[in-house]
Amino acid sequence: MEDRILLAHGSGGKLSHDIVEQIFLPLFGNTYLNKLDDSAVFDLNGRIAFTTDSYVVNPLFFPGGDIGKLAVCGTVNDLSMSGAAPLYLSMSLIIEEGFLVADLRRILESVRDAAEESGVRIVTGDTKVVNKGNTDGLFINTSGVGSIRTELDISGSNARPGDKVILSGAIGAHGIAVLSQREGLQFSSQIESDCAPLNRLVAEMIDSGDEIRCLRDPTRGGLATTLNEFAISSCVGIELEESKIPVDESVQAACDMLGLDPLYVANEGKLVAVVNAEGAEGIVDIMLKNKYGTVASIIGNVVSEHPGRVVMKTVMGASRIVDMLVGEQLPRIC
Amino acid sequence: MEDRILLAHGSGGKLSHDIVEQIFLPLFGNTYLNKLDDSAVFDLNGRIAFTTDSYVVNPLFFPGGDIGKLAVCGTVNDLSMSGAAPLYLSMSLIIEEGFLVADLRRILESVRDAAEESGVRIVTGDTKVVNKGNTDGLFINTSGVGSIRTELDISGSNARPGDKVILSGAIGAHGIAVLSQREGLQFSSQIESDCAPLNRLVAEMIDSGDEIRCLRDPTRGGLATTLNEFAISSCVGIELEESKIPVDESVQAACDMLGLDPLYVANEGKLVAVVNAEGAEGIVDIMLKNKYGTVASIIGNVVSEHPGRVVMKTVMGASRIVDMLVGEQLPRIC
Repeated sequence: MEDRILLAHGSGGKLSHDIVEQIFLPLFGNTYLNKLDDSAVFDLNGRIAFTTDSYVVNPLFFPGGDIGKLAVCGTVNDLSMSGAAPLYLSMSLIIEEGFLVADLRRILESVRDAAEESGVRIVTGDTKVVNKGNTDGLFINTSGVGSIRTELDISGSNARPGDKVILSGAIGAHGIAVLSQREGLQFSSQIESDCAPLNRLVAEMIDSGDEIRCLRDPTRGGLATTLNEFAISSCVGIELEESKIPVDESVQAACDMLGLDPLYVANEGKLVAVVNAEGAEGIVDIMLKNKYGTVASIIGNVVSEHPGRVVMKTVMGASRIVDMLVGEQLPRIC
Repeated sequence: MEDRILLAHGSGGKLSHDIVEQIFLPLFGNTYLNKLDDSAVFDLNGRIAFTTDSYVVNPLFFPGGDIGKLAVCGTVNDLSMSGAAPLYLSMSLIIEEGFLVADLRRILESVRDAAEESGVRIVTGDTKVVNKGNTDGLFINTSGVGSIRTELDISGSNARPGDKVILSGAIGAHGIAVLSQREGLQFSSQIESDCAPLNRLVAEMIDSGDEIRCLRDPTRGGLATTLNEFAISSCVGIELEESKIPVDESVQAACDMLGLDPLYVANEGKLVAVVNAEGAEGIVDIMLKNKYGTVASIIGNVVSEHPGRVVMKTVMGASRIVDMLVGEQLPRIC
């Protein structure tokens, strides 16, 4: 195999077949993918979730992960947030001519590892190569399908006054980790991305039997934007307690230095849930036992006042309106 | 709405919501998409086909189509080629900062029109914006799911000696149309891309009840590469008759001038089928009645000799081995 990716690796011809045989199949091979047909074919029954995301993170490698891990976790999490058990992923690569095959292999090993951890299979794919200078190294699209238990109805539009808002952990690490790597910033302790597949955490929450109304992973736009989405879609108000929202000291220090608000910084391994009040404590207890929910807590309430708005009681006792992200705080973090 | 795409349109925040509300929902709105959850949720039962493709065609607009039409037809066709009825598509955009909103709208109108013609719905999506110079205008990924009748078993590995090879129409128009536009080449008559959704043609072929063993659309790598894939996957030989393979005069003239072999030039509205010998004539008759199969014909046979190889009887009476595409004839044609 060549050291660098050539245009012909995306031609559909001999070199495309070589990359499939020498790289993709050894890493991802399974009954569905091995057929190398235009579509993967499998049996599914009932309610299906289907999602897509393109990953353009820059740089491709960052503390705590890389674009490959991100591309699996992000799509696994999007499926999980509709209550689905993620099953099958597609992977489509847009590679810049001249890209190092060794780097590609390292990224695809991360894809494989994240897929293994989350129990999904890569069943279909596509590779395009564009001329040098026409793209920025590598973009990855992953789409995914998963299966939802019929009794579940989880949607951003289901929040009701009286419900509780639960956050699975400390916010802001992913955005700061990517930004630090890109800008060559050094902090006293290295900040690692929280990038992680949350499907098992979600499965345990669902298994509790308590009613989960909304679930979302606060990625681009951060926690603030996700909660605004819930408030708008559900026509309810949300009240947050600033003191209840965990932010790691190192992330807070970096945010202070950079003039960023952690409420708007992307996460890739956190979830926000809106649940009925009676079940809230029980769900938090379950989350605390999962390695991706060790600091889960109730951070606020759903209210009937100020529908469409998120209001936060600050540590100083004041009230602050938390708006949706306006503008672009940190580009290319996913 | 702004005239040009800004980085913030991909932020996940306010401007991301604006582009969704002002452009995507008016064009594509449907029950599934309108929920704006992380995944689309729908009911499906039985055998499912799942496929993905990223489109990086350059230029974005070409005679007979644009990247939007291509992104729908290509994925609709990939689903169709496994015998599936295409149902739901995802659409993920990677847009360069500064891209004209008017161009984006025109492209998305093509997406809508092609989706309407083929009867599929865009149910989930994603938008990323990357800095100027970090990509080449616009890339589109579409993934798709479709439903397959359980009795069907169509795969590139199913060809058997004695089967017939059917081609739905004249080859090479797409690749030449894109290349001409990119290089500013003028031919006496304008060559238009054949880009088209083939799902209804395939449905009619399947409804005939005759056994279709393999189906594929000869895109990148052209007819030659697709037939080589069948020969390799099925461990059979394929014999072609050059005189039976239709090539439009204008495409042949352009290929002669450019030193290209139409057998290797991409198509986006053609299919190759391998069918059992008894049903072959009947299937061709059905295809001839569809607007995308008006020059369908049997172009060759599957044989037990030279497994893995495609051999063509030339118009001069000689035999020529038709190999898989080696290298890259025409980059960025899809």
